[in-house]
Amino acid sequence: MSLTQRERSVTALAGGVGGAKLAQGLADVVPPSSLSIVVNTADDFDLWGLRICPDLDTVMYTLAGLANPATGWGIAGDSSATLDAIARYGEAPWFQLGDQDFATHILRSEALRSGATLTEVTGKLSHNLGVASSILPMTDDIVSTMIRTPETVLAFQDYFVRRRQVDTVTGVTFAGIENASMSAVALAAIDSAGVIVFCPSNPLVSIGPILSLPGVRDRVRKAPGLRVGVSPIIGGKAIKGPADRMLESLGHESSAYGVAHLYADLLDVFVIDTRDEFDRARIEDLGMRVVVTDAVMGDRGDRARLAGEVLDAAGMAREAVS
Amino acid sequence: MSLTQRERSVTALAGGVGGAKLAQGLADVVPPSSLSIVVNTADDFDLWGLRICPDLDTVMYTLAGLANPATGWGIAGDSSATLDAIARYGEAPWFQLGDQDFATHILRSEALRSGATLTEVTGKLSHNLGVASSILPMTDDIVSTMIRTPETVLAFQDYFVRRRQVDTVTGVTFAGIENASMSAVALAAIDSAGVIVFCPSNPLVSIGPILSLPGVRDRVRKAPGLRVGVSPIIGGKAIKGPADRMLESLGHESSAYGVAHLYADLLDVFVIDTRDEFDRARIEDLGMRVVVTDAVMGDRGDRARLAGEVLDAAGMAREAVS
Repeated sequence: MSLTQRERSVTALAGGVGGAKLAQGLADVVPPSSLSIVVNTADDFDLWGLRICPDLDTVMYTLAGLANPATGWGIAGDSSATLDAIARYGEAPWFQLGDQDFATHILRSEALRSGATLTEVTGKLSHNLGVASSILPMTDDIVSTMIRTPETVLAFQDYFVRRRQVDTVTGVTFAGIENASMSAVALAAIDSAGVIVFCPSNPLVSIGPILSLPGVRDRVRKAPGLRVGVSPIIGGKAIKGPADRMLESLGHESSAYGVAHLYADLLDVFVIDTRDEFDRARIEDLGMRVVVTDAVMGDRGDRARLAGEVLDAAGMAREAVS
Repeated sequence: MSLTQRERSVTALAGGVGGAKLAQGLADVVPPSSLSIVVNTADDFDLWGLRICPDLDTVMYTLAGLANPATGWGIAGDSSATLDAIARYGEAPWFQLGDQDFATHILRSEALRSGATLTEVTGKLSHNLGVASSILPMTDDIVSTMIRTPETVLAFQDYFVRRRQVDTVTGVTFAGIENASMSAVALAAIDSAGVIVFCPSNPLVSIGPILSLPGVRDRVRKAPGLRVGVSPIIGGKAIKGPADRMLESLGHESSAYGVAHLYADLLDVFVIDTRDEFDRARIEDLGMRVVVTDAVMGDRGDRARLAGEVLDAAGMAREAVS
């Protein structure tokens, strides 16, 4: 079967580290120029006058082959002289920013202040790092994830980094989202994709903001491409981050099923780990096909393998559907 | 003789490296809190959205004991990971900014954008680095030195750093100076000083802008303190930078006498190097006393020695005057 351009093009929805890993795998198994990654920007914030976009940068550094393999975020071998010097001036260095990393924030902030959109800036920065795929901020508007706890409401990075996710999350809102819109290129990437991949990112605070942009959930539901999700929860636990605890404290099940349930109206296929095969029937009852595989991504080969299986699953599903 | 507070307080006018060295010497021989350094800001410029203040930083790093002894500017042992990463994004890294140095520019730029004055920012930054003397920007307004060459007009750092001073200087102007005013604290430092020291900085583009601020030359002339200058030209040559060639191409003499002539209406005492003793009579004819000493500053002990001789000269002159 020869695939049309639409059928070949892949659009991934991604947050940070988990999304970046699968995006890199996808970039290794499809022509990079036919891959678009729509990235969460609701974690973005301002620090010392610089605009910091953690998920965009994690995806960009990963696709550029620069990412720190130990953390998944930041740049491999980066130093911290600038941050140490900022601390010497009495500022709390609570958010880790490497010296090379600062270059990204400095140039991005300058371009944004000069009137460029985040989409334009991200395109230019990633192009200069040799990334051939399209990294697309979900929006050029400001959206800010706010975390409600039993005591207060925290800005996302206060919860996530400064307080190291110790708080029980009782609510999640996306400030500004009602007036934000998905960028035109991101919308086009969803509309034109042969396959839409939901990366194994936190469904509540990474994929959640993307789907919560006005009209986007509906747009994804009605998109002509096949929708394939990969579970970020394996054996009841998040590979990384607080997704498992957040699911539970917000009244969802901390399981592959719990994630599938959040995407019940959207997905054609859900990819789960072998550890979660026992849940296959319950997930299928949500109205999606289930693919069981090794869903843990280690090295780059692993990522490409899982990406290939995701695309195979889409191909199979497409045949089954048509 | 016991000195009153006025007689003990010292205000230095300074540019970059030469000014910073003598300022450090002064800080070592007077109580640091009775020393104010009014610093040229007409070299300041914006780069990648950051406000860079080369002379202020050179003075601040030197007084904080952080300055790179090899260059006189920048921070000792600083690395260049941020600048290298900026170059990776396709930007020309023509102006050397170290990683620790970036911290200064980032925090300063943020504070300025938040509405703080440069005087306030400089005070806070230098306090946090443990500097007890007052480092005072000459103005909180934007003044920009412009260099005329036979071909064009260059922004100062284009001439000074990017083009490495290869151009013949046919004119110097200070854009914005007619609407700028010296800060109130700098004016007070001039009015209240027992001794006003003209550091061995470039008389045309370092001390020149300070004296060119509206009313300042007259204010310095009428100040009650004794005015002591130190020649930046020794044996016809500038210790550092293009002062000698600039003096010549702008129609002045490239000599200690040439500098004294520019300050003829201002100085009570001029300190020159032993190499220039032959010019003593000509300089005295300008109406100032001449002190001949070793005017080259090497290590910190050297700086303190010269600073002590400057203050001794002021004391002698004061006795001679009273």
